[in-house]
Amino acid sequence: MIRVLFSAAEAAWPEWKEPLRSSFAARGLEVDLGRHHHPDKVDVIVCAPNGPVQDFAPYQGARLVQSLWAGVEGIVGNTTLTQPLARMVDPGLTEGMVEYVAGHALRHHLGMDAVLKAQDGHWDPLVPPLARDRGVTVLGLGALGSACAAQLAALGFRVSGWSASPKEIAGVTCLAGADGLTRVLRGAEILVLLLPLTAETDGLIDAAALGHLPGGAVIVNPGRGGLIVDADLLAALETGAVHHATLDTFRVEPLPAEHPFWAHPGVTVTPHIASATRPETAAPVVAENTARAMAGEPILHLVDRARGY
Amino acid sequence: MIRVLFSAAEAAWPEWKEPLRSSFAARGLEVDLGRHHHPDKVDVIVCAPNGPVQDFAPYQGARLVQSLWAGVEGIVGNTTLTQPLARMVDPGLTEGMVEYVAGHALRHHLGMDAVLKAQDGHWDPLVPPLARDRGVTVLGLGALGSACAAQLAALGFRVSGWSASPKEIAGVTCLAGADGLTRVLRGAEILVLLLPLTAETDGLIDAAALGHLPGGAVIVNPGRGGLIVDADLLAALETGAVHHATLDTFRVEPLPAEHPFWAHPGVTVTPHIASATRPETAAPVVAENTARAMAGEPILHLVDRARGY
Repeated sequence: MIRVLFSAAEAAWPEWKEPLRSSFAARGLEVDLGRHHHPDKVDVIVCAPNGPVQDFAPYQGARLVQSLWAGVEGIVGNTTLTQPLARMVDPGLTEGMVEYVAGHALRHHLGMDAVLKAQDGHWDPLVPPLARDRGVTVLGLGALGSACAAQLAALGFRVSGWSASPKEIAGVTCLAGADGLTRVLRGAEILVLLLPLTAETDGLIDAAALGHLPGGAVIVNPGRGGLIVDADLLAALETGAVHHATLDTFRVEPLPAEHPFWAHPGVTVTPHIASATRPETAAPVVAENTARAMAGEPILHLVDRARGY
Repeated sequence: MIRVLFSAAEAAWPEWKEPLRSSFAARGLEVDLGRHHHPDKVDVIVCAPNGPVQDFAPYQGARLVQSLWAGVEGIVGNTTLTQPLARMVDPGLTEGMVEYVAGHALRHHLGMDAVLKAQDGHWDPLVPPLARDRGVTVLGLGALGSACAAQLAALGFRVSGWSASPKEIAGVTCLAGADGLTRVLRGAEILVLLLPLTAETDGLIDAAALGHLPGGAVIVNPGRGGLIVDADLLAALETGAVHHATLDTFRVEPLPAEHPFWAHPGVTVTPHIASATRPETAAPVVAENTARAMAGEPILHLVDRARGY
């Protein structure tokens, strides 16, 4: 009997309980899944980084801490967490992210906001350019960034990608390193941010980085709010260096009502809805990693503590 | 020396002249391209259906009338036009159409209009469903409809298609005939209209057809305005049977300023900008068909007069 502790907000329990139970059963695992196991007896902790368990020291027998979130910056620095830690890579979350990024890239590419406003009886037929003539850059080529870059390329965009370590994606010009970053920013008529938040990426999109973008660029940030220096983005919106920013993630969430992003005509705030971990598609991932941890096999999406993700 | 007569609005001449000349040269054709050839000496007429030549009878030596437009309903019934008539199938026009349809399908799928309106400081995180749980139906599976259906399937949507003659598209459930139409309408949370306008399709989307849609459906019509019975659509918007209609084509264009579509909150009017024939990508098609016509080889995209497209 494998004891799995569920450590997330109480409201999350009803939607996770059954998908987790049926996924464990489907994987052939006998699991005692609950929210109140004695620490000595816990084999696996399934947790939201902001869940009730913040001191992992008592769980010395745990062979896996499986995050329910893709972003683990809120837990990776927890010094009590010495057990193997896995990020969530949920196919449903990836699909949702691709849909958000493709949708907002096409919205900006097609000039949809102006079209939606121009319902005034004036017939002004301006046909937008083709995607093949539009440069889109994706920063971060992990599971989410790679899937988004590939879909944007399939839609016909001229796509460049950038990541810390070199990657290869069919139809995407992939660069790495500081020189590569400057180059991909220069071609970014639409810039999509999907980097993990680490000491290296915190504030990466500052005045200097924004200064490399072509005039009138658009930013889409479903990654992490901390990637952007808010004041520098607001300044770039004032000068027109950046035409628009569609932001789904923020340094403080919920974004405070008094934050200038809300009222800014050049900013679209989406309330962290670009995508979500979905119990139906994520529970099988938890079951698979639980089976691997118990069998001593390699854990999927293991977090590299030094790298931070 | 092949004599090609260009018959479209005077404003179109500057943008077409050079792409046509260089495409003829690239195809190895010696062409005298102009706007004022003597009818007896014309080999090929390249025309917009609303262009200056409306009486084709004097051009008895012409081996091809090549439309610059995809939709030929304005010319196919011209009884003076007895020469072979070809529709335009322009790869650039197809790409633009796919981008418009994918963009507006994702806009409605993601509930973007509501998000764009909700910039009021209230954090209300409602994650949309996945495309895999959203039914999209494309009516018309010609060059444009097939390309759009394939791209929508690649975006993850559950795509059905319908056409007069049976088709096969990977990842798309293709039906034909009257029974098939009712079935695909029943699954159309988003309905995309890309049928040619013919006696059979004029007014196809009437109260009965709209009655088959699931409640709260969305319609995207970049095809032809005549496919829809305007009064029936307005009635369906009133009852909520249809949630929204994004219309790019109309029975009268420009859409008159007093038409109720302009001011209706449930209608987005786009001024026939979904896509356009682009000289750079269409001129090579004109050159290829000119070469075929002069060599007596099969003409591409030949219009079937009985069928109407």
